[in-house]
Amino acid sequence: MSSQLGQLFRISTFGESHGGGVGVVIDGCPPRIPLTEADLQIDLDRRRPGQSEVTTPRNEADQAEILSGTFEGLTLGAPIAILVRNKDHRPEAYSEMAEKYRPSHADYSYDAKFGIRNWQGGGRSSARETIGRVAAAAVAKRVINHLCPGIETLAWVKTVQDVSAEVDPLTVTSETIESNIVRTGDPEAAERMIERIKEIRSQGNSVGGTIEAVVRGCPPGLGEPVFDRLEADLAKAMLSIPATKGFEVGSGFGGTLLTGAEHNDHFYMDGETVRTKTNRSGGVQGGISNGEPILFRVAFKPTATIMSSQVTVSKDKEDTELKGRGRHDACVLPRAVPIVEAMTNLILCDHLLRHRAFCD
Amino acid sequence: MSSQLGQLFRISTFGESHGGGVGVVIDGCPPRIPLTEADLQIDLDRRRPGQSEVTTPRNEADQAEILSGTFEGLTLGAPIAILVRNKDHRPEAYSEMAEKYRPSHADYSYDAKFGIRNWQGGGRSSARETIGRVAAAAVAKRVINHLCPGIETLAWVKTVQDVSAEVDPLTVTSETIESNIVRTGDPEAAERMIERIKEIRSQGNSVGGTIEAVVRGCPPGLGEPVFDRLEADLAKAMLSIPATKGFEVGSGFGGTLLTGAEHNDHFYMDGETVRTKTNRSGGVQGGISNGEPILFRVAFKPTATIMSSQVTVSKDKEDTELKGRGRHDACVLPRAVPIVEAMTNLILCDHLLRHRAFCD
Amino acid sequence: MSSQLGQLFRISTFGESHGGGVGVVIDGCPPRIPLTEADLQIDLDRRRPGQSEVTTPRNEADQAEILSGTFEGLTLGAPIAILVRNKDHRPEAYSEMAEKYRPSHADYSYDAKFGIRNWQGGGRSSARETIGRVAAAAVAKRVINHLCPGIETLAWVKTVQDVSAEVDPLTVTSETIESNIVRTGDPEAAERMIERIKEIRSQGNSVGGTIEAVVRGCPPGLGEPVFDRLEADLAKAMLSIPATKGFEVGSGFGGTLLTGAEHNDHFYMDGETVRTKTNRSGGVQGGISNGEPILFRVAFKPTATIMSSQVTVSKDKEDTELKGRGRHDACVLPRAVPIVEAMTNLILCDHLLRHRAFCD
Amino acid sequence: MSSQLGQLFRISTFGESHGGGVGVVIDGCPPRIPLTEADLQIDLDRRRPGQSEVTTPRNEADQAEILSGTFEGLTLGAPIAILVRNKDHRPEAYSEMAEKYRPSHADYSYDAKFGIRNWQGGGRSSARETIGRVAAAAVAKRVINHLCPGIETLAWVKTVQDVSAEVDPLTVTSETIESNIVRTGDPEAAERMIERIKEIRSQGNSVGGTIEAVVRGCPPGLGEPVFDRLEADLAKAMLSIPATKGFEVGSGFGGTLLTGAEHNDHFYMDGETVRTKTNRSGGVQGGISNGEPILFRVAFKPTATIMSSQVTVSKDKEDTELKGRGRHDACVLPRAVPIVEAMTNLILCDHLLRHRAFCD
Repeated sequence: MSSQLGQLFRISTFGESHGGGVGVVIDGCPPRIPLTEADLQIDLDRRRPGQSEVTTPRNEADQAEILSGTFEGLTLGAPIAILVRNKDHRPEAYSEMAEKYRPSHADYSYDAKFGIRNWQGGGRSSARETIGRVAAAAVAKRVINHLCPGIETLAWVKTVQDVSAEVDPLTVTSETIESNIVRTGDPEAAERMIERIKEIRSQGNSVGGTIEAVVRGCPPGLGEPVFDRLEADLAKAMLSIPATKGFEVGSGFGGTLLTGAEHNDHFYMDGETVRTKTNRSGGVQGGISNGEPILFRVAFKPTATIMSSQVTVSKDKEDTELKGRGRHDACVLPRAVPIVEAMTNLILCDHLLRHRAFCD
Repeated sequence: MSSQLGQLFRISTFGESHGGGVGVVIDGCPPRIPLTEADLQIDLDRRRPGQSEVTTPRNEADQAEILSGTFEGLTLGAPIAILVRNKDHRPEAYSEMAEKYRPSHADYSYDAKFGIRNWQGGGRSSARETIGRVAAAAVAKRVINHLCPGIETLAWVKTVQDVSAEVDPLTVTSETIESNIVRTGDPEAAERMIERIKEIRSQGNSVGGTIEAVVRGCPPGLGEPVFDRLEADLAKAMLSIPATKGFEVGSGFGGTLLTGAEHNDHFYMDGETVRTKTNRSGGVQGGISNGEPILFRVAFKPTATIMSSQVTVSKDKEDTELKGRGRHDACVLPRAVPIVEAMTNLILCDHLLRHRAFCD
Repeated sequence: MSSQLGQLFRISTFGESHGGGVGVVIDGCPPRIPLTEADLQIDLDRRRPGQSEVTTPRNEADQAEILSGTFEGLTLGAPIAILVRNKDHRPEAYSEMAEKYRPSHADYSYDAKFGIRNWQGGGRSSARETIGRVAAAAVAKRVINHLCPGIETLAWVKTVQDVSAEVDPLTVTSETIESNIVRTGDPEAAERMIERIKEIRSQGNSVGGTIEAVVRGCPPGLGEPVFDRLEADLAKAMLSIPATKGFEVGSGFGGTLLTGAEHNDHFYMDGETVRTKTNRSGGVQGGISNGEPILFRVAFKPTATIMSSQVTVSKDKEDTELKGRGRHDACVLPRAVPIVEAMTNLILCDHLLRHRAFCD
Repeated sequence: MSSQLGQLFRISTFGESHGGGVGVVIDGCPPRIPLTEADLQIDLDRRRPGQSEVTTPRNEADQAEILSGTFEGLTLGAPIAILVRNKDHRPEAYSEMAEKYRPSHADYSYDAKFGIRNWQGGGRSSARETIGRVAAAAVAKRVINHLCPGIETLAWVKTVQDVSAEVDPLTVTSETIESNIVRTGDPEAAERMIERIKEIRSQGNSVGGTIEAVVRGCPPGLGEPVFDRLEADLAKAMLSIPATKGFEVGSGFGGTLLTGAEHNDHFYMDGETVRTKTNRSGGVQGGISNGEPILFRVAFKPTATIMSSQVTVSKDKEDTELKGRGRHDACVLPRAVPIVEAMTNLILCDHLLRHRAFCD
């Protein structure tokens, strides 16, 4: 069940980077939601390689086919299977990886676990697996819009290494974020981020950073006490994205420096609405949304594949060296922005259905 | 299912802070593991209030009774139900909470979700709920020891506000951590932390910090690709602990400042063992343990209950004020250390059973 | 997870016949449903031993305590834990069972699976385990009444060995069924059934039979396509009751003798309601209720414990003999009637919540 | 989650009879099991229409493609996605079904539940959905053979209407069953069954019957106490097959006529092996296999589609008539035999993995 996520809006992703294709089956989509393949393609295109000069030059069209679950443009309430064929097969680019473990990749740990590994392009640990997530999340977004209009999820690059963007989570728009190829909400910082990525890439090196995300318009009451807290499910969802190393919600790690008197969010009445004066809680209290914007950040390590020679070991347990090949992102963050949004929408959709079941 | 955790070693916690009691049912414990009530009491005593001068003076014995699932000192392979009775009932201490929402607590969001709330001591959102987790984790620890001896989980207070401890995760011992009431691995820092907590408490204020944890002796191969990555499940488990705001594994947020060349963990042969020269991965690669120590940190916000008057709103949606009452921890971290360890052991035990099912 | 049932209204039963007690945790009960311990006791009293001259003379009060999940007489939306203490401990009555396997009991298969067994009274395979189910189902019944008033589940003894009752599923009442100690809907047959049971018991022998059940007032649309069909979930629920050997819905096994032309249920309009002229489908089509009464039958084997000496083997794998001891039901059916109803209500409640989540 | 089955060997089927295709994703297949597309095709060919003169003349090749989860002929431990494209599209054959509900089909109940329905060929309720099950079960069979060699599942037609076959479950072979197009283990009865089916079909009518199945070589210890009993999971699996109306294990409904003294299976030692003299338990005791052959029967109603005009109602809730069209099986049993085997293997494989996780 390691490739399944969600209690009610349950997705099962499948596929390796090389093989017949990648995709997803969604079990738990309500009936009569408008859905076409074009709806999926928008986000898949934001995720795909080759879309700009700061992403990998690999060009993958990632054309999605809906195999089942819709009829005359509406969902049936039946499983929705989505398939994206693999195309850019170049196993020879990876032949050395059959024998040598790439540092800070999953090659060794997969072999240790399974005793077998599709060494072509990373197999199941390839970022290509996230296609299924993004496609499923495009469906989730339509379900959310249908059941609870007004919820909007946005993510943007907050930092690239030490280059930081100034973005107001309450007002930033999708248009601003998409207006620059690095996908940040601060056009001025975008320039510096792009410069940094190009510089690092020219050195055959790589760089990481953080992505910030906001959910605006989320009603109070979403999420569950105890284990399936909204922030706990978001934390799991984010840490399940390749290359992530951290998650924080609201005040996060920085909040540990404040006292309770400084940190507490005081309630007040805004007309008929209960609001908080500050939002250090990040929109969730006790695991449940309180109506304030849900705000969190995710840390991405620098891309593990770099173009210089590195010390490593072989499958036969001998010390050796390996030089990065192929066409990779020197910085995954611009393409990770739609993935962070996708994982957020998957979690929100699941909790929305859970709330309907019990509390409506 | 919001109170259930685990795919195979599945726990269901129950109970409010006021009412018949709190506890847990464990479904999925292997048979023939030695287990007595005394095994549970050790960790429950580390979690309980009133254990030292830096914790709340509430004195709760938290005596655990095993209701089922064992026979003649061994587990039966049947559900293990554990009950801890509630004792220190003082509903009058909470009567104001029936009408007013405590800032940065779950009072409002629970009401928004459920339309009802046990306002006595926080009900289900009370830290008392973690008793079931700690009891279940004591069982998990025995299962881990039985199936895979040599795995050891340790947690300690890393920072209290800006007071930081120097602790070597590779060598720190349980004895050192338990030698000071703040539960850190650095006795010198312990003094300063205790001083800080006392000072803050004397002001009727509160303080947060970070807890660091290590899993030593974990074999390579634990964890799953894609969603149920070991670090993703740990992230969820940690963010499900009350008052947590962040999680990071290995290099974490700090790692975003490094380049790939600096960040990558190079493999080398240490005799017959594959090791990495650095451990910025934090012991997990692609969601699966690689044999290095698993290392992560958790952020805890300052305790929401403080002894000064705060602005808030009432259940009837009117602006009002509320002053903290009752006996609370000015800093939850010393008592959260066993909870972090508990959540870690629950995740490890579940993944150990999953690994046995598929990959042994 | 073998002691868990339900996707949304999820119950976890626990407890052996001897030990601290038996009970259940319900995770997934909606909030604000009226619930008291008295609500549980009615059905527990119908299930308990010692209630009439055709049941075992063991007298167990089976007093239920709600440990959590309610507040001021209403459910909180939190897990509801229910505990019934064990009382009538007489391990010496079972000491021979520690060494010898009772024929057609679970003694041998449990030992083969777990390598350990609580041999006192059957441990986990004891009918006493069904206390948790009946208690949980009493809660389910209240949820059903609250969310979808008008659904009524009734079960009755249809046959005892070859003694058959004439009962009209459309009109039989709870009062008629409860008016006789064998719990059938045909008072005349009740006499003959009681006579048969007494006769068999006087011989130290035992007898089985069938229970029939109906769900009246179930709206169309409950149940799911493919695996979680309403009849499939009912089949599993019924076959999970100790001593059951068969399940059939609607026309059942007898329907295999008809042709399609004879068997098909023709639709017609009854005012604004779609009805079928016959109900060989048993109220379900394609796994989903069609608004007609849901009708099914369950086969119970004769009680395995009999008072004569039987050939068997010992734990040490030697041929031996064993004579039944203790106080047992010569016919389990009268006490199984509330269990069949309970399992039906658990399945209905779960599907009602599932329907709300997706299709409301 | 209605299209998912299994706790550890978890399958998710997808697809309508008309649309892109049907298939399955298997999450939970152990690594390094030999698997090719040819392995799947054997059972798919036994299930497909058009294979003999007693099945529907629709000719569907049902060619399976493995999209993911294997590498160089071995499973990877990753999700295995299998796709069978739909081909024989003839929506015009079904246009009348868009408006009128077929008696004893799922048309009305689907509309009542979902408010939408793919009326082309039954959509999700089509028997074509079972392709995914049969493909997944072919994988399950290989896992079983790998982990626990010697387990063999066989099913055969036991009765067609009142024509009954004499088959010895202990000795019947796959070769005998496959030697006749009706798939029974009694060649003489096969003749009469074929004759009956042809006769009924010539009348535009249809017929049902029973399928019997045996699992030979199953070790003691498979299955779980309480809800996930082996027989309970088999009951659910069988009742999830389209057109089934009943399930019985061991002595089944007939066993209710015996007394306990007649019914009990006495244990004896057969060398080092614990055996029972009779097998009225059907190979399971307390939900767990006891080493005897597992034996059960499944009732199938007569095919709902018949070639005569029938009274029904329209989607617009008006009384009307409908005449069956298209090419259908007058008796589904010959093609249901591989489906019964498939569902059995899916359940066995799941329980085998569960047993490994906890009890090995």
